[in-house]
Amino acid sequence: MLTLDLIKQAAERIAGRVHRTPAMTSRAFNEVAGCEVFFKCENLQRAGAFKARGATNKILSLTDDEKKRGVLAVSSGNHAQAVALAAREAGVRAVVCIPNDAPKMKVAGMRTYGADIRVFDRHKDDRDAFGRDIAERENLVHVPAYDDYLIMAGQGTCGLELLEEVSDLDSVMTPCSGGGLFAGVSTAAKAIKHSIKCFAVEPETANDTQQSIAKGERVKVSPPPTIADGLRVQTPGARTFPITQANADAVLTVTDDEILGAMRFMLFRMKIVVEPSGAAAAAAVLARKTPNSVRRVGVVLSGGNVDPEILARALEENR
Amino acid sequence: MLTLDLIKQAAERIAGRVHRTPAMTSRAFNEVAGCEVFFKCENLQRAGAFKARGATNKILSLTDDEKKRGVLAVSSGNHAQAVALAAREAGVRAVVCIPNDAPKMKVAGMRTYGADIRVFDRHKDDRDAFGRDIAERENLVHVPAYDDYLIMAGQGTCGLELLEEVSDLDSVMTPCSGGGLFAGVSTAAKAIKHSIKCFAVEPETANDTQQSIAKGERVKVSPPPTIADGLRVQTPGARTFPITQANADAVLTVTDDEILGAMRFMLFRMKIVVEPSGAAAAAAVLARKTPNSVRRVGVVLSGGNVDPEILARALEENR
Repeated sequence: MLTLDLIKQAAERIAGRVHRTPAMTSRAFNEVAGCEVFFKCENLQRAGAFKARGATNKILSLTDDEKKRGVLAVSSGNHAQAVALAAREAGVRAVVCIPNDAPKMKVAGMRTYGADIRVFDRHKDDRDAFGRDIAERENLVHVPAYDDYLIMAGQGTCGLELLEEVSDLDSVMTPCSGGGLFAGVSTAAKAIKHSIKCFAVEPETANDTQQSIAKGERVKVSPPPTIADGLRVQTPGARTFPITQANADAVLTVTDDEILGAMRFMLFRMKIVVEPSGAAAAAAVLARKTPNSVRRVGVVLSGGNVDPEILARALEENR
Repeated sequence: MLTLDLIKQAAERIAGRVHRTPAMTSRAFNEVAGCEVFFKCENLQRAGAFKARGATNKILSLTDDEKKRGVLAVSSGNHAQAVALAAREAGVRAVVCIPNDAPKMKVAGMRTYGADIRVFDRHKDDRDAFGRDIAERENLVHVPAYDDYLIMAGQGTCGLELLEEVSDLDSVMTPCSGGGLFAGVSTAAKAIKHSIKCFAVEPETANDTQQSIAKGERVKVSPPPTIADGLRVQTPGARTFPITQANADAVLTVTDDEILGAMRFMLFRMKIVVEPSGAAAAAAVLARKTPNSVRRVGVVLSGGNVDPEILARALEENR
């Protein structure tokens, strides 16, 4: 079960191994958004995304025997990078399975961290079966990208930090893909402040969580075409979904143009680089998609690993 | 005279009106640079550059009569933005004189802060005479971009903060244009730690300070073609130059390509946006132009106001 205690244990376990990222503010952003926003800068996290938290928590929790076997991760990029980094630091072998269209920057990161990379076709292969086969054949421990309580607890530590650093938040928002980040952050937030509102944000072409909540059960969508490469998971996790159902006051969606506009704003006004997936929650605030009751909101900027071609699109005018 | 006391007074005066910017580190940068680097992130400063420090210190030091008259600044962009911001907050009228090729982002900032903008031709007009004429005609108080002890003291506060935050620095480096930032930071640094080395960094096509130190007197160069729009001043200041002469252990130069390479590294690896002028000192470290004795260095990233076209150039591969 995912509890505040499990998140606090994760925070202790990963302390000193991942960054305590800053909570940044921008008067310019607040003016456009019409509310006070506190950005949790996981784009400045080690390996460039919040994923370092969960992966580090999970790998440090393995038994000695499991560490000897080595680990496997299936991921669009950031989770694989995080597992590669955490495994290297723990002296554990890592195999990562990534889609053939994973961002070059993320693949370069995995290489730097010494991972053994295997590539699947995002449109043809079943990513889970692809990873499971390799894990069985090579006797590796699977480190799930989100559907695991130790992973969720690790991701939740960024929510814990945000609530410790910023008082009186009335709401928190995170991007949502498999649901690990939202589950962790919302669990921490609601345990600390019962009345806080929690919003999950998806690209409108990748709204599997929104559809699943509307239907009351997990819905699977086609491979989404969104620019947000980290938010292309096709269905919520079996373990994350009940938590998202319980904690999400709403699931909001944003367009790719809104994401690019938010990236552009953050580049030129806040001087920080945020990847498309990482900018989704900020995009929802900037486009004023939050309820009017939201006055003081914590927004997770979940990652900063972006390829030059995508960053170039964010530079274009008139967004 | 510029003293540590004057810088400490400036720090008190501007506290709460400008940001205490973070000192950022990057393992990836250290690996390439071969030494430990602590970045003072003035790109995250209010109005996007260290200039907010000096302008705020100067304008808060004006007499009531001077405040009533209003102020004038001549600047390639960042100083004008800073004066516009500090003047607005002090309820003072501001006129800013800028070159016709000033970055659009910087001009937009001045407009936002409500400044009255006058444009001169960088290749034809004498910028000083242009500003002096307007100041006389409209009875405005000139707020110099660098050649003023209150301005230098304000800029020096970022050096003061850096030395307070990071122990045992063996050297500090700043970009150098008119010399106000270098004078302030080096004065603070040498007063706090006598043995510290101070390096000023210029674009190689705008090396007026390097030439002036070699000759022992102020040399004036032609309008420099460098991409670093904030470092195009043609000659060191009359008041800054003797301080630079006394404090500079060396003046280093960088090419535009080295600057763009450093910007690119910081975008993709550190997830921060630095403008060309702001990246000059970091570029010198990344290109290993510092003496081998430099092991633990404070580097000022002096600004982050950059136009999309320039940022697009930094995205290009193979630098």
